[in-house]
Amino acid sequence: MKIALVGIGKIALDQHVPALAASPDWELAATVSRHGRVNGIEAFTDIHAMLEARPDIPVVSLCLPPVPRFEAAQAVLRAGRHLMLEKPPGATLAEVHILSDLAQAQGVTIFATWHSRMAMAVAAARDWLAGRTIQGGRITWREDVRKWHPGQDWIFEAGGMGVFDPGINALSILTEILPEPLRLLSADLDFPANRQAPIAARLQFSQQIAADFDFRQEGPQTWDMEFQTDGGVLALRMGGNRLEIDGRHVQGADDIMGEYPALYARMAGLIAAGKRETDLAPMVLVADAFTLGRRNTVADFHF
Amino acid sequence: MKIALVGIGKIALDQHVPALAASPDWELAATVSRHGRVNGIEAFTDIHAMLEARPDIPVVSLCLPPVPRFEAAQAVLRAGRHLMLEKPPGATLAEVHILSDLAQAQGVTIFATWHSRMAMAVAAARDWLAGRTIQGGRITWREDVRKWHPGQDWIFEAGGMGVFDPGINALSILTEILPEPLRLLSADLDFPANRQAPIAARLQFSQQIAADFDFRQEGPQTWDMEFQTDGGVLALRMGGNRLEIDGRHVQGADDIMGEYPALYARMAGLIAAGKRETDLAPMVLVADAFTLGRRNTVADFHF
Repeated sequence: MKIALVGIGKIALDQHVPALAASPDWELAATVSRHGRVNGIEAFTDIHAMLEARPDIPVVSLCLPPVPRFEAAQAVLRAGRHLMLEKPPGATLAEVHILSDLAQAQGVTIFATWHSRMAMAVAAARDWLAGRTIQGGRITWREDVRKWHPGQDWIFEAGGMGVFDPGINALSILTEILPEPLRLLSADLDFPANRQAPIAARLQFSQQIAADFDFRQEGPQTWDMEFQTDGGVLALRMGGNRLEIDGRHVQGADDIMGEYPALYARMAGLIAAGKRETDLAPMVLVADAFTLGRRNTVADFHF
Repeated sequence: MKIALVGIGKIALDQHVPALAASPDWELAATVSRHGRVNGIEAFTDIHAMLEARPDIPVVSLCLPPVPRFEAAQAVLRAGRHLMLEKPPGATLAEVHILSDLAQAQGVTIFATWHSRMAMAVAAARDWLAGRTIQGGRITWREDVRKWHPGQDWIFEAGGMGVFDPGINALSILTEILPEPLRLLSADLDFPANRQAPIAARLQFSQQIAADFDFRQEGPQTWDMEFQTDGGVLALRMGGNRLEIDGRHVQGADDIMGEYPALYARMAGLIAAGKRETDLAPMVLVADAFTLGRRNTVADFHF
């Protein structure tokens, strides 16, 4: 099936383009981006122009930052095309509710993706936890924003979500694997004095689960979660790709390449089945953290 | 029907107790509060003790501040009682989803109330707007926190919502009367340097609608909204109680006493029909404002 990719930045080139190239389901037929392009693929700079010129493309995947995404998403759905959204699916919860209702009214598929849920060991972790009682948990999500988002000032602007941009990946796994739903009890958010989004956050959830998100981690990067249960200790490392039970390696590897191929395979399946998927649970927890969080001011941040 | 009231503070004494006393549907049978009580009514200081001692009370109404409300709400539902919640229904969106699912599992009614939706002219405003196109709107919600929340420090703590405590009343009306759903485009939040919740907020919504919330208004208080439409100008004043079309008074009065009797009548109706009502649209817009908002620091605030 032909697909257009909108927003040709780092994540599109690192993940979306290779995943589409390797898939038997998809043919990358056009791109839309102010500056970026993909060799050999027709390139537009305006989404409306692409939708008008290429009625043969029934599916559009958006990799734009969250704030400008809504207008493009609405244009895609109004043009009767299926829509796939990078995480987070929007800058606000209300706009995703509007998009979801619009997709339903148009009879097309909308898929709000959470790539970390496709990590290699997530399904096995969910299955293992299913029969057990959580006694406590610790999520550590510490990475170097200069490495993963070099010069991307939008991430620290209002609505850019700051450290919740990676942190929401942890929350997308957490809301997928826990047998009982989670609620936020308190949050501490560290805002650099010169920025409008937090660079670090410490969250306390129900079920004795705590999370530590930090965007200032140099050297080795950490995307780990550990849970104490009545049946032993489960650890999910490398962003959901490696599963350990009681310290013993059970499944997965230090490899994070399988997520986007799995997302595109699922999108093909949703379209074939005429279904929609917009699970906002990870985004609700982020909104709750901003609503409930104590704000601390920390040192200026410069890329 | 017998009902217990939990959290005997200003709003309980000003609104809930008189509304229950005047209703043919309800009998106030117990109160739960650390300090407050109502003359002639059995008073508990612990919700669990009340639930155990008074199995004859099938309905509980919570007027606690949002942060401590969840534990009490969960206890009520687990005890198989119907639950009515003051606005906002919780400190987080996730906890209200959990309560709603729990009520469904228990087969009892949960009613997340928005008292301003019961104001005298709200239904008429909704009906008048229904066939029309909104060209723009302005919400002005400016009141004196020292008058309405004297000494209530919780309102400026993390999770207390600050000026969104009254502002969510405006949003509850807005989400009830507009023909098209609303999304937040941007927000400016003013945090006093010594507080963790905003004292003022300026919001820009889709449909050319802007809102100005301020907790520092002395003298006359303002709870107004005005909409330009293709069929004229609608103004809803006095917190939804007075309707004007093109400057002409159409309905309502400067009276805000009918809201809580209407809420309790609706609660009786929901129980009789075996229904639940938890519309989170106003709270989603608040969470979106905290997520998307730019933060400004303003002068210290002291009661």
